[in-house]
Amino acid sequence: MRAPLVAVVGGGTCTPEEVAWAVAVGRLVAERGAVLVCGGLGGVMEAAARGAKQAGGLTIGILPGSDPAAANPHIDVAIATGLGEMRNALIVRAAGAVIAIGGGWGTLAEIALARRSETPVVGLHDAFTVGVDIPRVERPDEAVRWALEHVGRREV
Amino acid sequence: MRAPLVAVVGGGTCTPEEVAWAVAVGRLVAERGAVLVCGGLGGVMEAAARGAKQAGGLTIGILPGSDPAAANPHIDVAIATGLGEMRNALIVRAAGAVIAIGGGWGTLAEIALARRSETPVVGLHDAFTVGVDIPRVERPDEAVRWALEHVGRREV
Amino acid sequence: MRAPLVAVVGGGTCTPEEVAWAVAVGRLVAERGAVLVCGGLGGVMEAAARGAKQAGGLTIGILPGSDPAAANPHIDVAIATGLGEMRNALIVRAAGAVIAIGGGWGTLAEIALARRSETPVVGLHDAFTVGVDIPRVERPDEAVRWALEHVGRREV
Amino acid sequence: MRAPLVAVVGGGTCTPEEVAWAVAVGRLVAERGAVLVCGGLGGVMEAAARGAKQAGGLTIGILPGSDPAAANPHIDVAIATGLGEMRNALIVRAAGAVIAIGGGWGTLAEIALARRSETPVVGLHDAFTVGVDIPRVERPDEAVRWALEHVGRREV
Repeated sequence: MRAPLVAVVGGGTCTPEEVAWAVAVGRLVAERGAVLVCGGLGGVMEAAARGAKQAGGLTIGILPGSDPAAANPHIDVAIATGLGEMRNALIVRAAGAVIAIGGGWGTLAEIALARRSETPVVGLHDAFTVGVDIPRVERPDEAVRWALEHVGRREV
Repeated sequence: MRAPLVAVVGGGTCTPEEVAWAVAVGRLVAERGAVLVCGGLGGVMEAAARGAKQAGGLTIGILPGSDPAAANPHIDVAIATGLGEMRNALIVRAAGAVIAIGGGWGTLAEIALARRSETPVVGLHDAFTVGVDIPRVERPDEAVRWALEHVGRREV
Repeated sequence: MRAPLVAVVGGGTCTPEEVAWAVAVGRLVAERGAVLVCGGLGGVMEAAARGAKQAGGLTIGILPGSDPAAANPHIDVAIATGLGEMRNALIVRAAGAVIAIGGGWGTLAEIALARRSETPVVGLHDAFTVGVDIPRVERPDEAVRWALEHVGRREV
Repeated sequence: MRAPLVAVVGGGTCTPEEVAWAVAVGRLVAERGAVLVCGGLGGVMEAAARGAKQAGGLTIGILPGSDPAAANPHIDVAIATGLGEMRNALIVRAAGAVIAIGGGWGTLAEIALARRSETPVVGLHDAFTVGVDIPRVERPDEAVRWALEHVGRREV
């Protein structure tokens, strides 16, 4: 059976704590046999990809620009879309489940698009803890367990 | 000079109060010489287009599906994108300014994408009054004035 | 009933003869009550929009970039997609019928995408007269008549 | 260094000869360390992915629909775009080079979009041998060699 795709979304700049969470999430995604999908750039995206590679996983970066060389060094497959921020919609549509870590407007857009396109999304210690009603967990292992339990469930 | 594009975003289903706001906003957008852009379907989108047509304006509907006949009857130009919810990103990218009225996840996605792509966005009595930090106004005329003052200003 | 959308596609640079054809096509599209859609830039796109405005029609430009100011001066509604050449697919998907005038690779892509998405497409004195099997006509009035007879017919 | 992406494009239905070519191309792409990208469905796409897997390669399918389960069984990573035929533009934009094998309107669109977006494209015994001016080769090994020599060269 084909490995599921789990997206990790979050800011291109982030706190050291968010980096630690993203690395742990990425590692667990890979250890449990899923493919890591992210936006391919820095911050949370880079940390998640780094964690996945540490565990021998496969990492896909769906980039906003046209140059695959813009991907961070932990991305195995750089898909340069040239879509700009519209690539956020592509990430959450392609993923079987989404884990959001902190983040700003781009992450909020991804959470909202995930809800709108019925891709399961969970927040890990998310900054959007007020006014945005999604399931939340406190630890990386809970986030990955939640994501893998909900992969591909469009009813969520 | 080419007329500016003002997008009105909001739920496909909405309250009678939101309908009244959207009609008033649509009418003012048209009276002040701007082109109304919206998602082309029901609820807030239909009400805004109705208001704009009452004032003799031009209305553009950027539809998620492939069939232009799905547009509401107040849409002059139905652009059937076939992009699904990704068309939300197209609406806020194409608009010079965005007015959000109530709404659910789709509207939140449009607000976040607008902030992300630096299209000015203002909330009118918006449901996302907690946790989503955007300028807010209380009346339709304030929303349209704000939008027209900020049209095309990428620094906002 | 909503006016149909007729797309005119062709090169951003073109011959004086192609300009004359595009102006005539644009004028006839407008005279017959259809909305002109094009890529919004120069060459055939500008000539077709100019013709449509001479006849008092409505013109929509679906631009590759993010800046509506890049549209030619005959475009009433400039939709800045930021999609790059992917906007070609949006033009032919949104249109009820497509008229191709000369052109290069971009025009060929639009013809092929039109055939692929079952949007009726006709070539006017097209450069792709060898190897690309689409209906062809010799005069602008024939092209517009063909387009309006086939608008929205997905079986073509 | 990150492995280059080579796209193989061609018909969803194809001749036995085209299947043989596509399998051979896919195998060589993988043997030479590149990632195979295709549209993820049947015909040439399935044959190329099958060949790549026989050689232990990695295969990416960029699907038109929203369901990753629609991918053929030789696809490792199924990216369900929901973009319809617009995903053709994404394939050629993401790839470093494109190999076209036979095919119909969809393949012609991909060839034209590749030329337009300056992604190197080569035709293998292509059906579009008249009227479409691209480099052509006669054997799978020549196609793969050409693709790998031109990967990422935007000047082509």
